[in-house]
Amino acid sequence: MRYEEFTIEGRNAVIEAFRSGKPIDKVFILDGSQEGPIQTIKREAKKHDTMVKFVTKERLDQMSETGKHQGVIAYAAAYEYAEVEDILEVARQKGEAPFVFLLDNIEDPHNLGAIIRTANLAGAHGVIIPKNRAVGLTATVARTSAGALNYTPVARVTNIAKTIEELKKEGMWFVCADMGGTTMYDLDLKGAIGLVIGNEGEGVGRLVREKCDFIASIPMKGDIDSLNASVAAGVLAYEIVRQRMLG
Amino acid sequence: MRYEEFTIEGRNAVIEAFRSGKPIDKVFILDGSQEGPIQTIKREAKKHDTMVKFVTKERLDQMSETGKHQGVIAYAAAYEYAEVEDILEVARQKGEAPFVFLLDNIEDPHNLGAIIRTANLAGAHGVIIPKNRAVGLTATVARTSAGALNYTPVARVTNIAKTIEELKKEGMWFVCADMGGTTMYDLDLKGAIGLVIGNEGEGVGRLVREKCDFIASIPMKGDIDSLNASVAAGVLAYEIVRQRMLG
Repeated sequence: MRYEEFTIEGRNAVIEAFRSGKPIDKVFILDGSQEGPIQTIKREAKKHDTMVKFVTKERLDQMSETGKHQGVIAYAAAYEYAEVEDILEVARQKGEAPFVFLLDNIEDPHNLGAIIRTANLAGAHGVIIPKNRAVGLTATVARTSAGALNYTPVARVTNIAKTIEELKKEGMWFVCADMGGTTMYDLDLKGAIGLVIGNEGEGVGRLVREKCDFIASIPMKGDIDSLNASVAAGVLAYEIVRQRMLG
Repeated sequence: MRYEEFTIEGRNAVIEAFRSGKPIDKVFILDGSQEGPIQTIKREAKKHDTMVKFVTKERLDQMSETGKHQGVIAYAAAYEYAEVEDILEVARQKGEAPFVFLLDNIEDPHNLGAIIRTANLAGAHGVIIPKNRAVGLTATVARTSAGALNYTPVARVTNIAKTIEELKKEGMWFVCADMGGTTMYDLDLKGAIGLVIGNEGEGVGRLVREKCDFIASIPMKGDIDSLNASVAAGVLAYEIVRQRMLG
């Protein structure tokens, strides 16, 4: 996955970038500046959990590419999404049965990053996320993925349920993690498999769940409801790894 | 685990609470106040990732228990730690072989919360953390544990290595998660077991590692170095669950 950093300069451009949801890594602001638009940028930065550094005018002049920074320069991240076909191609090239993660509306960027990290280490060939509602590839996701974003392709699709249908035609089958299913140890999780992980609060959506061939449950031996979404993804992914290693 | 909320009122008291590392949940500040100590409190709140709410004087007066809030009231959380003996007692009462998590310097409160959540659901009887350096039971940990802190006892000890030695006398044995060990599927993880999880960056410390009976490795089939600490804890904990379920 290609990952680039670029700068956004000037007050309106930076405010606009925040408001349009562009993943911004860091903002450099002229030290001591108290003007309205700068206050707005500070608020946006706080809201988006973006690091703010207060620097001198000399430093900003030095960093500026346009010479028109108006006291603010943001570092943004740009990621190139893969296509679903690219993911299948990775599996083909490795001579392995496809192993794909499908994330049905993960909202927390730390969870998304940790899941991409897990997908990489569990030997999955890629991750599929939905275009709307869910979190995309922000700077926080990149950081939390611990570098996995550079190796594991992530594709965005309009409709996860429809993607599952299409991939079934390629011979894949799908297991979703949810309560009330079969204990994961009792399922045969070998072969060309898609692991579907649901939203943090609501789990897997009904339409997506209906497309799955099996529902796998993690044994719950405690008092509370559910594991953290990235932990649940890890536990299920490694049950797949274990079964694949058995042959 | 008992969990209480109490208020801290007045500028110096709140600044002091932040600086002494007390887990503060939320700070209410008089709207529009720009005085020095209030700015200090805002900075501390930001540093500790504490939620700030700006409210009217009437609201503060209403919340105040002392009548001397000086424009600031903080909500702090107080947790009661368990003793190691309490954890063993839980196992005894359930008639189960002890299953305990030992965290060798987990630093991220989100990881600590997620691991306590996992410990609860994997059926562990408690979690042991070190007194120094590592993160303690903050409000973020409580929130991330999704309620598990109310059920799963957490004990703090001065020295993890020494605690392992003492618990070995009780018939427990210890497995630590680290690279270069035996693949976890090839270890016998039944019986009275302590699962040792290392620091996010540095892994398990040398002294603690030397006390462990086995080193368990999670198979790594990707390009990057390691799983997120809470995911690794989950994957290993559930391999223990799997083997225990087999009998």
